[in-house]
Amino acid sequence: MPTVASDIEIARAATKKPIFEIGARLGIASEDLVPYGHDKAKVSAQFINAQSKKPDGKLILVTAINPTPAGEGKTTTTVGLGDGLNRIGKNAMICVREPSLGPCFGVKGGAAGGGHAQVVPMEDINLHFTGDFHAITSAHNLLAAMIDNHIYWGNALNIDVRRITWRRVMDMNDRALREIVGSLGGVSNGFPREGGFDITVASEVMAILCLANDLEDLEKRLGDIIVAYRTDKTPVFARDLKADGAMAVLLKDAMQPNLVQTLENNPAFVHGGPFANIAHGCNSVIATRTALKLADYVVTEAGFGADLGAEKFFDIKCRKAGLKPDAAVIVATVRALKMNGGVAKDDLGQENVDALTRGCSNLGRHVANVRKFGVPVVVAINHFISDTDAEVAAVKEYVAHLGAEAILCRHWAEGSAGIEELAWKVVEMAQSGTAKFEPIYPDAMPLMEKIEAVAAKIYHAGEVTATKAVRDQLKAWEEQGYGKLPVCMAKTQYSFSTDPTLRGAPEGHVVTVREVRLSAGAGFVVAITGEIMTMPGLPRSPAAERIVLNEQGYIEGLF
Amino acid sequence: MPTVASDIEIARAATKKPIFEIGARLGIASEDLVPYGHDKAKVSAQFINAQSKKPDGKLILVTAINPTPAGEGKTTTTVGLGDGLNRIGKNAMICVREPSLGPCFGVKGGAAGGGHAQVVPMEDINLHFTGDFHAITSAHNLLAAMIDNHIYWGNALNIDVRRITWRRVMDMNDRALREIVGSLGGVSNGFPREGGFDITVASEVMAILCLANDLEDLEKRLGDIIVAYRTDKTPVFARDLKADGAMAVLLKDAMQPNLVQTLENNPAFVHGGPFANIAHGCNSVIATRTALKLADYVVTEAGFGADLGAEKFFDIKCRKAGLKPDAAVIVATVRALKMNGGVAKDDLGQENVDALTRGCSNLGRHVANVRKFGVPVVVAINHFISDTDAEVAAVKEYVAHLGAEAILCRHWAEGSAGIEELAWKVVEMAQSGTAKFEPIYPDAMPLMEKIEAVAAKIYHAGEVTATKAVRDQLKAWEEQGYGKLPVCMAKTQYSFSTDPTLRGAPEGHVVTVREVRLSAGAGFVVAITGEIMTMPGLPRSPAAERIVLNEQGYIEGLF
Repeated sequence: MPTVASDIEIARAATKKPIFEIGARLGIASEDLVPYGHDKAKVSAQFINAQSKKPDGKLILVTAINPTPAGEGKTTTTVGLGDGLNRIGKNAMICVREPSLGPCFGVKGGAAGGGHAQVVPMEDINLHFTGDFHAITSAHNLLAAMIDNHIYWGNALNIDVRRITWRRVMDMNDRALREIVGSLGGVSNGFPREGGFDITVASEVMAILCLANDLEDLEKRLGDIIVAYRTDKTPVFARDLKADGAMAVLLKDAMQPNLVQTLENNPAFVHGGPFANIAHGCNSVIATRTALKLADYVVTEAGFGADLGAEKFFDIKCRKAGLKPDAAVIVATVRALKMNGGVAKDDLGQENVDALTRGCSNLGRHVANVRKFGVPVVVAINHFISDTDAEVAAVKEYVAHLGAEAILCRHWAEGSAGIEELAWKVVEMAQSGTAKFEPIYPDAMPLMEKIEAVAAKIYHAGEVTATKAVRDQLKAWEEQGYGKLPVCMAKTQYSFSTDPTLRGAPEGHVVTVREVRLSAGAGFVVAITGEIMTMPGLPRSPAAERIVLNEQGYIEGLF
Repeated sequence: MPTVASDIEIARAATKKPIFEIGARLGIASEDLVPYGHDKAKVSAQFINAQSKKPDGKLILVTAINPTPAGEGKTTTTVGLGDGLNRIGKNAMICVREPSLGPCFGVKGGAAGGGHAQVVPMEDINLHFTGDFHAITSAHNLLAAMIDNHIYWGNALNIDVRRITWRRVMDMNDRALREIVGSLGGVSNGFPREGGFDITVASEVMAILCLANDLEDLEKRLGDIIVAYRTDKTPVFARDLKADGAMAVLLKDAMQPNLVQTLENNPAFVHGGPFANIAHGCNSVIATRTALKLADYVVTEAGFGADLGAEKFFDIKCRKAGLKPDAAVIVATVRALKMNGGVAKDDLGQENVDALTRGCSNLGRHVANVRKFGVPVVVAINHFISDTDAEVAAVKEYVAHLGAEAILCRHWAEGSAGIEELAWKVVEMAQSGTAKFEPIYPDAMPLMEKIEAVAAKIYHAGEVTATKAVRDQLKAWEEQGYGKLPVCMAKTQYSFSTDPTLRGAPEGHVVTVREVRLSAGAGFVVAITGEIMTMPGLPRSPAAERIVLNEQGYIEGLF
């Protein structure tokens, strides 16, 4: 096997163009780009607002089968497809999420694509980037400080200190902060109470930033955040604390999309990154909308597998932002399909067509699901060096039986040259006019029925159970006017079911809604099934121990 | 009285030059500037390293009498003097501290000068700026997370969980976080223990960044941080946790000085901002050193009054960085001197030469103190609209008796045109070669004697008291090799004594050292006298409630 260059080696060897040149290609004048270094820039609000009358390009979603430890390469394929479309002469852009800083120091590598399909500068993108997540952390924690400060000075709003739902956030994997008691130490530090920290990507402020149309809408949504309840159960809003204005001020720059480039010097927006379980897991609406004005094809991604990511992309982001996706790509790998067919990770190197074919049931379910939204589908087989011809042929055959096409893609190894066939297919689908996008449930459906609709149609569950308390809470929110919101399912990403070990395409399983939460600012109701971790911990030997600056001033150990 | 434009109105009306133009004037090529927007940039490490052989310009310190609620205008005078020097044909730069984000939402206004002597863009400088403080927060909290993570996974280093000295930080005024118990909630969240948060400017990482020579020195100092002690009292270093490399990676960009401009388009570094009580309160060494290579005159400031700020500038920053200040400006206002003479804040509008003359004792003490360091002194009377001619004359006369000069400065109202006389005087002093800078105590002096030297020579205290525990601790550190470090006095800024109400020039008071702390990475021993608040709270009606974006997208209520 030849020596393969690492992602970071490939990224460093890239010949980046000045960001003003990338912007100029999109028709963005230099005064409308706010540079962060020579290779990153934000696009000015004025420029974005001035594009509103332009026609939209075609919107392509890249999603995937359920993730496995074998890896699928969704971001890599998003980047590769963007480069592939440009290669075949189309004006294409990509829109992906910003990675979170905290997990970089744990076990996770970078999240900016891989191999010869990356966005650069990858170190910056994975570290502080343009400071968006820091701004979100600040805005979130300002609101938290104002809650405790309000109580300290007399609690005129009658906040029930046992019913404060607004926690604090930090962009760090720090399990010690999950559950704390604060305001200890005496009178001058306030009233002791239980609280805790989530990681920044789990903040409702992150979800709000990613769903807001503009600064005005952002400020309105920030004001709509419910931070606590009174003893009479009436909600206390961020607006009641007069926190919304200052939070919007802190987020003013973070609202503007970040322009960077791929290894092949094609434009990319990397903007926003909400959790894909308790939030909707997509990059910002403002980035996607702006890209649609600037390019004929916009390739974007959604978090986790299609059961979570694509469903939320369609039912939350597209529904709320009025986006109409024209085609979807479902990424699968031979290795991940074999895992879905029961092969252990250590045995993935061996050819196993039988297991692969069994595992294809997972892929088949996702293909059928995405079609339920009225969006045409193609499967991208993200090629791995150990895949055999027989295995690849088996996937193609399986997908052909579904009336769809699976295309082998070698963008990881070859860049855009390895993904031309997929690019042509995507153009054909997008131009065919066959997409008839519809969310899976209507706005008017009661909240519990929305949950049931997703569980039945997407997860193939046999039953949804929920305690009376959960059902009563949903009814109460409906009475308060929140009944038209979409639901945001928080479920394990590893299975269609709520059991992470149940791979393939399980049927008739039971989905238990343990808890529901109202994200009134973001505009969705979160339905939590199973344990959802909102503050990760570091592993025994965290990556941070091996991250250093080498003698050339380069970062080592981060990826 | 004519309508006076507010600081923010003046700042917004400024005609800023592109930051590349400001850099070009200093000989910095565009590829050596890392832009953050069109009006802010960091200077590349390569460029800075390439300047090392150049001769240094003259270094001018701006310090002040003890602060009062009347305001003195130290940053305003620093900016004004820089502009004044440029106006009279000199090549001058200013170096000031970055303001902290958190206090902007409390009671404090901006910290970028005032009137017609400001650095711009003031909104950005007061908010996220170039992200330096966010990077410091991340690096600090990564170390904290690694401590608890180490304990969680078995505590191989035998950290005594009762003796962890490393807290967490947030750039926010949040009293609820001062004292917490973390790691609650069961086995998976670790071992419950007491902890808490300081504001980011109080982080030792901030002090380290401001004292480090370069990235290599930064990483070494980060490794030297003592985070905890074992049961046998031996220290545990950040290096033992292997956190220093990743922390340096997070701080790589934050180490580079931030270039902005004054209202008059003169270059300014705004970089670093450690607390002036538990840390040394000066902008970064790297900014000051770089400015000295690029300009013939560098005007910089130090925190609080000269008893704290100038003393630490001389004894910590200059001593450690090998800087040789050439002249010092002590800023006073008629109003503040009247307060030092016993006038209540509400009565400051009335002429009161008697009280003023009494209050001048405070100024006189500072003049004498600065001279003890071998640095020639001039007094700047920062003019306020209500000052009478008789009052100004009284200050001038008082200072003349000290063998120095007090010069009336109108830079707040007039910009550089109002401060020409001071600029000429500073040039004369700096060129005279009369400066013979010496720290007030030698490195080799025992730590307790260093504290006593500062208390006697600078504070005019009659006695220093300390418990046996404090004295033993100092001796223990001397035995461990920390005896040669300078001391960093944490004392109220409002008085020469430890009693904040004792204005003027008290004599023979008692200084009680309550506690000592070792900042082994920053390289000083902190001596705490009285209560030092390292995490502010918000007031009853925080400024955040009034901060909004107006219809033009401008920030209102921040200043």
